[in-house]
Amino acid sequence: MQVFQQIDEARNWVRQQRAAGHRTALVPTMGALHQGHLSLVELGRQRCEKTIATIFVNPTQFGPGEDFEQYPRLPEEDLQLLRQVGTDAVFLPDAAAMYPTGFSTAVSPPDVAGDLEGRLRPGHFSGVATVVLKLFQILPATHAVFGRKDYQQLLVIAAMVRDLNVDIEIIDAPIVREADGLALSSRNRYLSQDERQSAKRLSAALQACCDAFADGNRDADDLQSIMHAVLTESGKSHPPVDSIDYAVVRGADDLRVLNTVTADAVALIAAKVGSTRLIDNRVIGNTH
Amino acid sequence: MQVFQQIDEARNWVRQQRAAGHRTALVPTMGALHQGHLSLVELGRQRCEKTIATIFVNPTQFGPGEDFEQYPRLPEEDLQLLRQVGTDAVFLPDAAAMYPTGFSTAVSPPDVAGDLEGRLRPGHFSGVATVVLKLFQILPATHAVFGRKDYQQLLVIAAMVRDLNVDIEIIDAPIVREADGLALSSRNRYLSQDERQSAKRLSAALQACCDAFADGNRDADDLQSIMHAVLTESGKSHPPVDSIDYAVVRGADDLRVLNTVTADAVALIAAKVGSTRLIDNRVIGNTH
Repeated sequence: MQVFQQIDEARNWVRQQRAAGHRTALVPTMGALHQGHLSLVELGRQRCEKTIATIFVNPTQFGPGEDFEQYPRLPEEDLQLLRQVGTDAVFLPDAAAMYPTGFSTAVSPPDVAGDLEGRLRPGHFSGVATVVLKLFQILPATHAVFGRKDYQQLLVIAAMVRDLNVDIEIIDAPIVREADGLALSSRNRYLSQDERQSAKRLSAALQACCDAFADGNRDADDLQSIMHAVLTESGKSHPPVDSIDYAVVRGADDLRVLNTVTADAVALIAAKVGSTRLIDNRVIGNTH
Repeated sequence: MQVFQQIDEARNWVRQQRAAGHRTALVPTMGALHQGHLSLVELGRQRCEKTIATIFVNPTQFGPGEDFEQYPRLPEEDLQLLRQVGTDAVFLPDAAAMYPTGFSTAVSPPDVAGDLEGRLRPGHFSGVATVVLKLFQILPATHAVFGRKDYQQLLVIAAMVRDLNVDIEIIDAPIVREADGLALSSRNRYLSQDERQSAKRLSAALQACCDAFADGNRDADDLQSIMHAVLTESGKSHPPVDSIDYAVVRGADDLRVLNTVTADAVALIAAKVGSTRLIDNRVIGNTH
Protein backbone atom coordinates (compact mmCIF):
# COMPACT_ATOMS: atom_id res chain seq x y z
CA MET A 1 0.00 0.00 0.00
CA GLN A 2 1.38 3.36 -1.05
CA VAL A 3 1.17 6.19 1.47
CA PHE A 4 1.43 9.78 0.22
CA GLN A 5 1.66 12.98 2.20
CA GLN A 6 2.50 15.24 -0.74
CA ILE A 7 -0.20 16.46 -3.10
CA ASP A 8 1.88 15.96 -6.24
CA GLU A 9 2.87 12.40 -5.36
CA ALA A 10 -0.72 11.38 -4.70
CA ARG A 11 -1.93 13.09 -7.87
CA ASN A 12 0.73 11.39 -9.98
CA TRP A 13 -0.24 7.99 -8.59
CA VAL A 14 -3.91 8.50 -9.53
CA ARG A 15 -2.94 9.82 -12.94
CA GLN A 16 -0.83 6.73 -13.54
CA GLN A 17 -3.73 4.45 -12.63
CA ARG A 18 -6.00 6.28 -15.05
CA ALA A 19 -3.37 6.29 -17.77
CA ALA A 20 -3.08 2.52 -17.30
CA GLY A 21 -6.83 2.26 -17.90
CA HIS A 22 -7.75 1.46 -14.29
CA ARG A 23 -11.00 2.69 -12.84
CA THR A 24 -9.95 4.30 -9.59
CA ALA A 25 -12.11 4.78 -6.50
CA LEU A 26 -11.50 7.65 -4.08
CA VAL A 27 -12.65 7.11 -0.49
CA PRO A 28 -12.39 10.37 1.49
CA THR A 29 -12.36 9.94 5.28
CA MET A 30 -11.43 11.84 8.41
CA GLY A 31 -9.71 8.76 9.81
CA ALA A 32 -10.63 7.05 13.09
CA LEU A 33 -11.75 4.29 10.79
CA HIS A 34 -14.39 1.70 11.61
CA GLN A 35 -16.12 -1.03 9.66
CA GLY A 36 -18.33 1.56 7.98
CA HIS A 37 -15.29 3.20 6.37
CA LEU A 38 -13.85 -0.16 5.45
CA SER A 39 -17.11 -1.06 3.71
CA LEU A 40 -16.59 2.05 1.54
CA VAL A 41 -13.17 0.77 0.53
CA GLU A 42 -14.63 -2.66 -0.16
CA LEU A 43 -17.32 -1.12 -2.36
CA GLY A 44 -14.64 0.86 -4.17
CA ARG A 45 -12.68 -2.32 -4.74
CA GLN A 46 -15.76 -4.05 -6.13
CA ARG A 47 -16.39 -1.29 -8.65
CA CYS A 48 -12.86 -0.21 -9.56
CA GLU A 49 -9.46 -1.77 -10.20
CA LYS A 50 -7.71 0.63 -7.81
CA THR A 51 -8.73 2.34 -4.59
CA ILE A 52 -7.20 5.34 -2.83
CA ALA A 53 -8.38 6.45 0.61
CA THR A 54 -7.72 9.85 2.13
CA ILE A 55 -7.36 10.67 5.81
CA PHE A 56 -7.74 14.34 6.65
CA VAL A 57 -9.52 15.88 9.63
CA ASN A 58 -10.73 18.92 7.74
CA PRO A 59 -10.76 21.96 10.02
CA THR A 60 -13.06 24.05 7.83
CA GLN A 61 -16.06 21.78 8.30
CA PHE A 62 -16.02 22.10 12.09
CA GLY A 63 -17.76 25.08 13.68
CA PRO A 64 -16.69 26.97 16.80
CA GLY A 65 -17.35 24.81 19.85
CA GLU A 66 -17.47 21.61 17.80
CA ASP A 67 -15.11 18.68 18.34
CA PHE A 68 -12.27 19.46 15.90
CA GLU A 69 -9.59 19.40 18.60
CA GLN A 70 -10.81 16.20 20.25
CA TYR A 71 -11.73 14.40 17.03
CA PRO A 72 -9.89 11.05 17.26
CA ARG A 73 -6.65 10.84 15.28
CA LEU A 74 -5.28 7.32 14.95
CA PRO A 75 -3.19 7.27 11.76
CA GLU A 76 -1.23 4.11 12.57
CA GLU A 77 -4.33 2.07 13.34
CA ASP A 78 -6.07 3.56 10.29
CA LEU A 79 -3.24 2.60 7.95
CA GLN A 80 -3.19 -0.90 9.37
CA LEU A 81 -6.94 -1.31 8.74
CA LEU A 82 -6.70 0.10 5.21
CA ARG A 83 -3.85 -2.28 4.46
CA GLN A 84 -5.89 -5.22 5.71
CA VAL A 85 -8.80 -4.50 3.35
CA GLY A 86 -6.53 -4.14 0.31
CA THR A 87 -6.49 -0.37 -0.19
CA ASP A 88 -3.95 0.45 -2.91
CA ALA A 89 -2.96 3.92 -1.74
CA VAL A 90 -3.61 6.43 1.03
CA PHE A 91 -3.30 10.21 0.94
CA LEU A 92 -2.66 11.91 4.29
CA PRO A 93 -2.07 15.59 3.66
CA ASP A 94 -1.36 18.06 6.42
CA ALA A 95 -3.50 21.15 6.92
CA ALA A 96 -0.75 23.52 5.75
CA ALA A 97 -0.63 21.76 2.39
CA MET A 98 -4.40 21.82 1.98
CA TYR A 99 -4.87 25.38 3.23
CA PRO A 100 -1.69 27.36 2.53
CA THR A 101 -1.35 30.99 3.56
CA GLY A 102 -3.69 33.13 1.48
CA PHE A 103 -6.22 30.37 0.91
CA SER A 104 -9.55 32.11 0.45
CA THR A 105 -11.70 30.34 -2.18
CA ALA A 106 -14.70 28.28 -1.08
CA VAL A 107 -17.56 26.37 -2.55
CA SER A 108 -20.94 27.88 -1.79
CA PRO A 109 -22.85 24.62 -1.49
CA PRO A 110 -26.07 23.76 -3.34
CA ASP A 111 -29.57 24.42 -1.99
CA VAL A 112 -29.87 20.95 -0.46
CA ALA A 113 -27.25 22.08 2.07
CA GLY A 114 -29.50 24.80 3.44
CA ASP A 115 -31.57 22.98 6.05
CA LEU A 116 -30.96 20.41 8.84
CA GLU A 117 -27.17 20.02 9.27
CA GLY A 118 -26.57 23.14 7.20
CA ARG A 119 -28.86 25.20 9.41
CA LEU A 120 -27.52 23.79 12.67
CA ARG A 121 -23.87 23.83 11.62
CA PRO A 122 -23.33 27.09 9.69
CA GLY A 123 -20.39 26.75 7.31
CA HIS A 124 -20.22 22.98 7.70
CA PHE A 125 -21.26 22.08 4.16
CA SER A 126 -19.18 24.84 2.64
CA GLY A 127 -16.20 23.27 4.39
CA VAL A 128 -17.20 19.79 3.25
CA ALA A 129 -17.90 20.81 -0.34
CA THR A 130 -14.66 22.78 -0.58
CA VAL A 131 -12.40 20.03 0.75
CA VAL A 132 -14.15 17.36 -1.30
CA LEU A 133 -13.80 19.45 -4.44
CA LYS A 134 -10.11 19.93 -3.64
CA LEU A 135 -9.68 16.19 -3.20
CA PHE A 136 -11.46 15.59 -6.52
CA GLN A 137 -8.98 17.97 -8.19
CA ILE A 138 -5.92 16.55 -6.48
CA LEU A 139 -6.92 12.93 -7.08
CA PRO A 140 -8.68 12.66 -10.45
CA ALA A 141 -10.35 9.34 -9.69
CA THR A 142 -13.12 7.89 -11.84
CA HIS A 143 -15.33 7.13 -8.82
CA ALA A 144 -15.72 8.37 -5.26
CA VAL A 145 -17.46 6.50 -2.47
CA PHE A 146 -19.47 8.21 0.28
CA GLY A 147 -21.56 6.62 3.00
CA ARG A 148 -25.29 7.10 3.33
CA LYS A 149 -24.76 7.65 7.05
CA ASP A 150 -24.07 11.30 6.18
CA TYR A 151 -27.17 11.39 4.03
CA GLN A 152 -27.39 15.15 3.51
CA GLN A 153 -23.65 15.30 2.80
CA LEU A 154 -24.13 12.70 0.08
CA LEU A 155 -26.85 14.82 -1.54
CA VAL A 156 -24.70 17.95 -1.23
CA ILE A 157 -21.74 16.28 -2.92
CA ALA A 158 -23.88 14.74 -5.66
CA ALA A 159 -25.44 18.14 -6.41
CA MET A 160 -22.05 19.86 -6.37
CA VAL A 161 -20.62 17.30 -8.78
CA ARG A 162 -23.58 17.77 -11.10
CA ASP A 163 -23.60 21.58 -10.87
CA LEU A 164 -19.84 22.01 -11.34
CA ASN A 165 -19.56 19.24 -13.96
CA VAL A 166 -16.94 17.37 -11.95
CA ASP A 167 -15.95 14.32 -13.97
CA ILE A 168 -16.43 11.68 -11.29
CA GLU A 169 -19.09 9.09 -10.49
CA ILE A 170 -20.42 9.12 -6.93
CA ILE A 171 -21.07 5.71 -5.35
CA ASP A 172 -23.23 5.73 -2.25
CA ALA A 173 -22.72 3.04 0.34
CA PRO A 174 -25.22 1.62 2.86
CA ILE A 175 -24.98 2.43 6.55
CA VAL A 176 -23.14 -0.20 8.60
CA ARG A 177 -24.74 -0.86 12.00
CA GLU A 178 -23.89 -2.66 15.21
CA ALA A 179 -25.98 -5.72 16.01
CA ASP A 180 -28.34 -3.60 18.12
CA GLY A 181 -28.86 -1.06 15.32
CA LEU A 182 -26.45 1.72 16.28
CA ALA A 183 -24.97 3.24 13.13
CA LEU A 184 -21.18 3.08 13.15
CA SER A 185 -19.55 6.46 13.69
CA SER A 186 -16.11 7.64 14.71
CA ARG A 187 -17.92 9.69 17.34
CA ASN A 188 -19.30 6.55 19.03
CA ARG A 189 -15.90 6.42 20.74
CA TYR A 190 -16.98 9.42 22.80
CA LEU A 191 -19.90 7.50 24.39
CA SER A 192 -19.79 6.17 27.93
CA GLN A 193 -21.33 2.73 28.52
CA ASP A 194 -24.63 4.27 29.62
CA GLU A 195 -24.63 6.73 26.73
CA ARG A 196 -23.96 3.85 24.37
CA GLN A 197 -27.27 2.33 25.54
CA SER A 198 -29.15 5.58 25.02
CA ALA A 199 -27.63 5.95 21.56
CA LYS A 200 -29.61 2.91 20.43
CA ARG A 201 -32.68 5.10 20.49
CA LEU A 202 -31.78 6.77 17.21
CA SER A 203 -31.96 3.58 15.18
CA ALA A 204 -34.95 2.42 17.24
CA ALA A 205 -36.80 5.63 16.40
CA LEU A 206 -36.04 5.16 12.70
CA GLN A 207 -37.26 1.59 12.95
CA ALA A 208 -40.48 2.73 14.61
CA CYS A 209 -40.97 5.25 11.81
CA CYS A 210 -40.48 2.56 9.17
CA ASP A 211 -42.83 0.22 11.01
CA ALA A 212 -45.54 2.86 11.15
CA PHE A 213 -45.02 3.56 7.46
CA ALA A 214 -45.28 -0.18 6.75
CA ASP A 215 -48.54 -0.17 8.72
CA GLY A 216 -49.89 2.45 6.35
CA ASN A 217 -49.19 5.70 8.18
CA ARG A 218 -48.36 8.36 5.59
CA ASP A 219 -48.67 11.48 7.72
CA ALA A 220 -45.30 13.19 8.17
CA ASP A 221 -46.29 14.82 11.47
CA ASP A 222 -47.42 11.46 12.86
CA LEU A 223 -44.22 9.73 11.81
CA GLN A 224 -42.10 12.51 13.27
CA SER A 225 -44.04 12.33 16.56
CA ILE A 226 -43.41 8.60 16.69
CA MET A 227 -39.65 9.21 16.34
CA HIS A 228 -39.68 11.94 18.99
CA ALA A 229 -41.53 9.60 21.37
CA VAL A 230 -38.99 6.82 20.98
CA LEU A 231 -36.10 9.25 21.48
CA THR A 232 -37.54 10.81 24.63
CA GLU A 233 -39.84 8.33 26.41
CA SER A 234 -38.79 7.36 29.93
CA GLY A 235 -39.25 4.02 31.66
CA LYS A 236 -36.81 2.08 29.50
CA SER A 237 -33.71 0.32 30.81
CA HIS A 238 -31.62 3.22 29.46
CA PRO A 239 -32.19 6.99 29.64
CA PRO A 240 -33.59 9.04 26.75
CA VAL A 241 -31.38 11.15 24.51
CA ASP A 242 -30.43 14.50 26.00
CA SER A 243 -31.67 16.69 23.17
CA ILE A 244 -33.05 16.37 19.66
CA ASP A 245 -31.78 18.62 16.90
CA TYR A 246 -34.26 17.15 14.42
CA ALA A 247 -36.24 13.98 13.82
CA VAL A 248 -37.92 14.49 10.47
CA VAL A 249 -39.25 12.81 7.38
CA ARG A 250 -38.16 14.54 4.16
CA GLY A 251 -38.00 14.03 0.42
CA ALA A 252 -35.27 11.48 -0.29
CA ASP A 253 -33.82 13.36 -3.28
CA ASP A 254 -33.83 16.94 -2.03
CA LEU A 255 -34.86 16.91 1.66
CA ARG A 256 -37.97 18.93 0.84
CA VAL A 257 -40.62 19.14 3.57
CA LEU A 258 -43.37 16.57 3.02
CA ASN A 259 -46.88 16.56 4.36
CA THR A 260 -47.87 13.17 3.05
CA VAL A 261 -45.04 10.69 2.87
CA THR A 262 -44.48 8.80 -0.32
CA ALA A 263 -42.03 5.94 -0.76
CA ASP A 264 -39.51 8.53 -1.94
CA ALA A 265 -38.70 9.71 1.58
CA VAL A 266 -36.02 9.52 4.22
CA ALA A 267 -36.24 9.78 7.99
CA LEU A 268 -33.34 11.70 9.51
CA ILE A 269 -32.36 12.22 13.13
CA ALA A 270 -29.73 14.32 14.86
CA ALA A 271 -29.63 14.11 18.65
CA LYS A 272 -27.24 14.57 21.51
CA VAL A 273 -26.39 11.81 23.96
CA GLY A 274 -24.40 13.40 26.74
CA SER A 275 -22.11 15.81 24.92
CA THR A 276 -21.90 13.64 21.80
CA ARG A 277 -23.93 14.62 18.76
CA LEU A 278 -25.08 11.63 16.70
CA ILE A 279 -26.88 11.44 13.36
CA ASP A 280 -28.67 8.59 11.66
CA ASN A 281 -31.16 8.11 8.86
CA ARG A 282 -33.16 5.54 7.01
CA VAL A 283 -34.83 5.60 3.64
CA ILE A 284 -38.46 4.79 4.32
CA GLY A 285 -39.74 1.57 2.84
CA ASN A 286 -36.15 0.48 2.39
CA THR A 287 -33.99 -1.72 4.59
CA HIS A 288 -30.68 0.14 4.75
CA MET B 1 -12.22 22.71 -36.76
CA GLN B 2 -14.53 20.70 -34.57
CA VAL B 3 -17.57 22.49 -33.14
CA PHE B 4 -19.30 21.02 -30.09
CA GLN B 5 -22.51 22.09 -28.43
CA GLN B 6 -22.85 19.08 -26.12
CA ILE B 7 -20.83 18.86 -22.91
CA ASP B 8 -19.98 15.18 -23.32
CA GLU B 9 -18.76 15.58 -26.90
CA ALA B 10 -16.47 18.44 -25.99
CA ARG B 11 -15.17 16.61 -22.91
CA ASN B 12 -14.43 13.49 -24.93
CA TRP B 13 -12.49 15.48 -27.51
CA VAL B 14 -10.27 17.03 -24.82
CA ARG B 15 -9.81 13.66 -23.15
CA GLN B 16 -8.72 12.17 -26.45
CA GLN B 17 -6.15 14.92 -26.96
CA ARG B 18 -4.72 14.33 -23.50
CA ALA B 19 -4.74 10.58 -23.97
CA ALA B 20 -2.77 11.12 -27.18
CA GLY B 21 -0.19 13.06 -25.17
CA HIS B 22 -1.10 16.49 -26.52
CA ARG B 23 -0.85 19.53 -24.34
CA THR B 24 -4.22 21.21 -24.78
CA ALA B 25 -4.96 24.91 -24.32
CA LEU B 26 -8.41 26.12 -23.28
CA VAL B 27 -9.38 29.66 -24.33
CA PRO B 28 -12.65 30.70 -22.64
CA THR B 29 -14.42 33.62 -24.31
CA MET B 30 -17.84 35.27 -24.42
CA GLY B 31 -17.59 35.54 -28.21
CA ALA B 32 -17.77 38.82 -30.17
CA LEU B 33 -14.16 38.03 -30.89
CA HIS B 34 -11.51 40.56 -31.75
CA GLN B 35 -7.75 40.42 -32.24
CA GLY B 36 -7.27 40.27 -28.46
CA HIS B 37 -9.11 36.97 -28.29
CA LEU B 38 -7.31 35.67 -31.33
CA SER B 39 -3.99 36.47 -29.67
CA LEU B 40 -5.08 34.18 -26.80
CA VAL B 41 -5.64 31.37 -29.29
CA GLU B 42 -2.28 32.08 -30.89
CA LEU B 43 -0.57 31.95 -27.50
CA GLY B 44 -2.35 28.67 -26.78
CA ARG B 45 -1.11 27.31 -30.10
CA GLN B 46 2.44 28.34 -29.29
CA ARG B 47 2.40 26.54 -25.96
CA CYS B 48 0.25 23.51 -26.72
CA GLU B 49 -0.31 21.03 -29.51
CA LYS B 50 -4.10 21.51 -29.42
CA THR B 51 -6.34 24.47 -28.69
CA ILE B 52 -10.04 24.58 -27.82
CA ALA B 53 -11.94 27.86 -27.52
CA THR B 54 -15.26 28.28 -25.78
CA ILE B 55 -17.96 30.80 -26.61
CA PHE B 56 -20.53 31.34 -23.88
CA VAL B 57 -22.10 34.61 -22.77
CA ASN B 58 -22.33 33.62 -19.13
CA PRO B 59 -25.48 35.11 -17.58
CA THR B 60 -24.34 34.69 -13.96
CA GLN B 61 -21.46 37.17 -14.27
CA PHE B 62 -23.74 40.02 -15.34
CA GLY B 63 -25.50 42.04 -12.66
CA PRO B 64 -28.97 43.59 -12.85
CA GLY B 65 -28.88 46.56 -15.22
CA GLU B 66 -25.70 45.36 -16.92
CA ASP B 67 -25.45 44.56 -20.62
CA PHE B 68 -26.22 40.82 -20.70
CA GLU B 69 -29.12 41.21 -23.12
CA GLN B 70 -27.32 43.57 -25.49
CA TYR B 71 -23.92 41.83 -25.27
CA PRO B 72 -22.95 41.16 -28.92
CA ARG B 73 -23.57 37.60 -30.14
CA LEU B 74 -21.93 36.81 -33.46
CA PRO B 75 -21.36 33.06 -33.54
CA GLU B 76 -20.88 32.75 -37.31
CA GLU B 77 -18.26 35.50 -37.46
CA ASP B 78 -16.60 34.10 -34.32
CA LEU B 79 -16.32 30.60 -35.78
CA GLN B 80 -14.90 32.02 -38.99
CA LEU B 81 -12.20 33.92 -37.08
CA LEU B 82 -11.34 30.93 -34.89
CA ARG B 83 -11.01 28.76 -37.99
CA GLN B 84 -8.69 31.31 -39.58
CA VAL B 85 -6.26 31.27 -36.66
CA GLY B 86 -6.12 27.48 -36.55
CA THR B 87 -8.25 26.70 -33.49
CA ASP B 88 -8.72 22.94 -33.29
CA ALA B 89 -12.10 22.87 -31.56
CA VAL B 90 -14.81 25.16 -30.24
CA PHE B 91 -17.33 24.53 -27.47
CA LEU B 92 -20.55 26.55 -27.67
CA PRO B 93 -22.87 25.33 -24.93
CA ASP B 94 -26.31 26.76 -24.36
CA ALA B 95 -27.35 28.22 -21.03
CA ALA B 96 -29.75 25.35 -20.27
CA ALA B 97 -26.89 22.86 -20.53
CA MET B 98 -24.61 24.93 -18.32
CA TYR B 99 -27.29 25.85 -15.77
CA PRO B 100 -29.91 23.11 -15.70
CA THR B 101 -32.96 23.33 -13.44
CA GLY B 102 -31.90 23.02 -9.81
CA PHE B 103 -28.42 24.44 -10.38
CA SER B 104 -27.41 26.04 -7.10
CA THR B 105 -23.68 25.54 -6.39
CA ALA B 106 -21.30 28.48 -6.74
CA VAL B 107 -17.70 29.35 -6.17
CA SER B 108 -17.18 31.92 -3.45
CA PRO B 109 -14.21 33.68 -5.05
CA PRO B 110 -10.88 34.37 -3.33
CA ASP B 111 -10.07 37.54 -1.41
CA VAL B 112 -8.53 39.25 -4.44
CA ALA B 113 -12.08 39.43 -5.85
CA GLY B 114 -13.28 41.65 -3.04
CA ASP B 115 -12.36 45.13 -4.23
CA LEU B 116 -12.59 47.15 -7.50
CA GLU B 117 -14.69 45.12 -9.98
CA GLY B 118 -15.87 42.84 -7.18
CA ARG B 119 -17.10 45.78 -5.13
CA LEU B 120 -18.71 47.57 -8.06
CA ARG B 121 -20.20 44.44 -9.64
CA PRO B 122 -21.52 42.30 -6.76
CA GLY B 123 -21.67 38.66 -7.76
CA HIS B 124 -19.58 39.21 -10.89
CA PHE B 125 -16.54 37.25 -9.80
CA SER B 126 -18.62 34.49 -8.26
CA GLY B 127 -20.25 34.11 -11.68
CA VAL B 128 -16.87 34.20 -13.43
CA ALA B 129 -15.19 31.77 -11.02
CA THR B 130 -18.12 29.36 -11.17
CA VAL B 131 -18.35 29.23 -14.95
CA VAL B 132 -14.58 29.00 -15.36
CA LEU B 133 -14.40 26.16 -12.85
CA LYS B 134 -17.20 24.40 -14.74
CA LEU B 135 -15.31 24.81 -18.01
CA PHE B 136 -12.16 23.46 -16.35
CA GLN B 137 -14.14 20.38 -15.27
CA ILE B 138 -15.88 19.89 -18.61
CA LEU B 139 -12.71 20.41 -20.64
CA PRO B 140 -9.74 18.96 -18.73
CA ALA B 141 -7.12 20.91 -20.66
CA THR B 142 -3.50 21.15 -19.55
CA HIS B 143 -3.41 24.93 -19.99
CA ALA B 144 -5.88 27.81 -20.05
CA VAL B 145 -5.24 31.24 -21.54
CA PHE B 146 -6.68 34.45 -20.08
CA GLY B 147 -5.96 38.02 -21.13
CA ARG B 148 -4.37 40.58 -18.85
CA LYS B 149 -7.01 43.05 -20.02
CA ASP B 150 -9.25 41.60 -17.28
CA TYR B 151 -6.42 41.91 -14.79
CA GLN B 152 -8.39 41.29 -11.62
CA GLN B 153 -10.19 38.35 -13.26
CA LEU B 154 -6.82 36.82 -14.06
CA LEU B 155 -5.77 37.10 -10.41
CA VAL B 156 -9.11 35.67 -9.25
CA ILE B 157 -8.80 32.67 -11.55
CA ALA B 158 -5.16 32.05 -10.64
CA ALA B 159 -6.01 32.15 -6.92
CA MET B 160 -9.03 29.86 -7.42
CA VAL B 161 -6.91 27.35 -9.33
CA ARG B 162 -4.31 27.40 -6.58
CA ASP B 163 -6.83 27.22 -3.71
CA LEU B 164 -8.95 24.45 -5.25
CA ASN B 165 -5.94 22.51 -6.62
CA VAL B 166 -7.30 22.58 -10.16
CA ASP B 167 -4.84 20.70 -12.33
CA ILE B 168 -4.34 23.31 -15.04
CA GLU B 169 -1.65 25.85 -15.89
CA ILE B 170 -2.85 29.43 -16.38
CA ILE B 171 -1.18 31.37 -19.19
CA ASP B 172 -1.65 35.14 -19.09
CA ALA B 173 -1.66 37.04 -22.33
CA PRO B 174 -0.70 40.70 -22.95
CA ILE B 175 -3.33 43.31 -23.74
CA VAL B 176 -3.81 43.98 -27.46
CA ARG B 177 -4.31 47.65 -28.29
CA GLU B 178 -5.39 49.77 -31.22
CA ALA B 179 -2.69 52.00 -32.75
CA ASP B 180 -3.88 54.91 -30.58
CA GLY B 181 -3.66 52.85 -27.38
CA LEU B 182 -7.29 51.79 -26.87
CA ALA B 183 -7.39 48.29 -25.41
CA LEU B 184 -9.40 45.92 -27.58
CA SER B 185 -12.75 44.97 -26.05
CA SER B 186 -15.97 43.46 -27.33
CA ARG B 187 -17.68 46.43 -25.68
CA ASN B 188 -15.82 48.91 -27.93
CA ARG B 189 -18.55 48.10 -30.45
CA TYR B 190 -20.96 50.06 -28.30
CA LEU B 191 -18.97 53.31 -28.75
CA SER B 192 -20.09 56.12 -31.06
CA GLN B 193 -17.38 57.86 -33.06
CA ASP B 194 -17.11 60.65 -30.48
CA GLU B 195 -17.11 58.19 -27.60
CA ARG B 196 -14.38 56.23 -29.35
CA GLN B 197 -12.20 59.37 -29.15
CA SER B 198 -12.94 59.83 -25.45
CA ALA B 199 -12.17 56.19 -24.81
CA LYS B 200 -8.52 56.84 -25.69
CA ARG B 201 -8.24 58.65 -22.38
CA LEU B 202 -8.03 55.38 -20.44
CA SER B 203 -4.81 54.25 -22.09
CA ALA B 204 -3.53 57.84 -22.10
CA ALA B 205 -4.07 58.05 -18.34
CA LEU B 206 -2.21 54.76 -17.83
CA GLN B 207 0.60 56.09 -20.02
CA ALA B 208 0.78 59.29 -17.98
CA CYS B 209 0.98 57.21 -14.81
CA CYS B 210 3.82 55.12 -16.22
CA ASP B 211 5.62 58.26 -17.42
CA ALA B 212 5.39 59.83 -13.96
CA PHE B 213 6.65 56.58 -12.43
CA ALA B 214 9.54 56.58 -14.92
CA ASP B 215 10.29 60.15 -13.85
CA GLY B 216 10.69 58.93 -10.28
CA ASN B 217 7.24 59.57 -8.80
CA ARG B 218 6.49 56.79 -6.29
CA ASP B 219 3.54 58.33 -4.48
CA ALA B 220 0.34 56.38 -5.11
CA ASP B 221 -1.92 59.38 -4.48
CA ASP B 222 0.08 61.49 -6.94
CA LEU B 223 -0.04 58.81 -9.61
CA GLN B 224 -3.77 58.33 -9.11
CA SER B 225 -4.35 62.08 -9.34
CA ILE B 226 -2.43 62.16 -12.60
CA MET B 227 -4.71 59.46 -14.02
CA HIS B 228 -7.84 61.25 -12.82
CA ALA B 229 -6.62 64.46 -14.44
CA VAL B 230 -6.06 62.83 -17.84
CA LEU B 231 -9.49 61.15 -17.68
CA THR B 232 -11.37 64.33 -16.80
CA GLU B 233 -9.47 67.38 -18.09
CA SER B 234 -11.36 69.51 -20.60
CA GLY B 235 -9.90 71.44 -23.51
CA LYS B 236 -8.89 68.44 -25.59
CA SER B 237 -10.21 67.69 -29.05
CA HIS B 238 -12.48 65.04 -27.46
CA PRO B 239 -14.63 65.17 -24.34
CA PRO B 240 -13.58 63.61 -21.01
CA VAL B 241 -14.96 60.32 -19.81
CA ASP B 242 -18.40 60.54 -18.26
CA SER B 243 -17.57 58.94 -14.93
CA ILE B 244 -14.71 57.16 -13.21
CA ASP B 245 -15.35 54.00 -11.19
CA TYR B 246 -11.71 53.82 -10.16
CA ALA B 247 -8.27 54.90 -11.32
CA VAL B 248 -5.85 53.36 -8.87
CA VAL B 249 -2.38 51.98 -8.39
CA ARG B 250 -2.33 48.66 -6.54
CA GLY B 251 -0.08 45.74 -5.73
CA ALA B 252 0.39 43.71 -8.89
CA ASP B 253 0.00 40.32 -7.20
CA ASP B 254 -2.93 40.93 -4.88
CA LEU B 255 -4.32 44.41 -5.62
CA ARG B 256 -3.43 45.57 -2.11
CA VAL B 257 -3.55 49.30 -1.47
CA LEU B 258 -0.09 50.88 -1.79
CA ASN B 259 1.14 54.12 -0.37
CA THR B 260 4.54 54.09 -1.99
CA VAL B 261 4.63 52.40 -5.37
CA THR B 262 7.23 49.77 -6.01
CA ALA B 263 7.91 48.16 -9.37
CA ASP B 264 5.52 45.41 -8.33
CA ALA B 265 2.41 47.47 -9.06
CA VAL B 266 -0.40 47.83 -11.56
CA ALA B 267 -2.46 50.85 -12.55
CA LEU B 268 -6.13 49.99 -13.15
CA ILE B 269 -8.95 52.09 -14.52
CA ALA B 270 -12.68 51.57 -14.92
CA ALA B 271 -14.63 54.42 -16.45
CA LYS B 272 -17.80 55.07 -18.36
CA VAL B 273 -17.84 56.68 -21.78
CA GLY B 274 -21.46 57.40 -22.60
CA SER B 275 -23.27 54.32 -21.33
CA THR B 276 -20.34 52.01 -22.05
CA ARG B 277 -18.20 50.86 -19.16
CA LEU B 278 -14.56 50.29 -20.11
CA ILE B 279 -11.64 48.88 -18.15
CA ASP B 280 -7.91 48.99 -18.79
CA ASN B 281 -4.72 48.44 -16.84
CA ARG B 282 -0.97 48.54 -17.12
CA VAL B 283 1.73 46.98 -15.02
CA ILE B 284 3.90 49.88 -13.92
CA GLY B 285 7.46 49.82 -15.19
CA ASN B 286 6.37 47.30 -17.80
CA THR B 287 5.38 47.82 -21.41
CA HIS B 288 2.29 45.69 -21.80
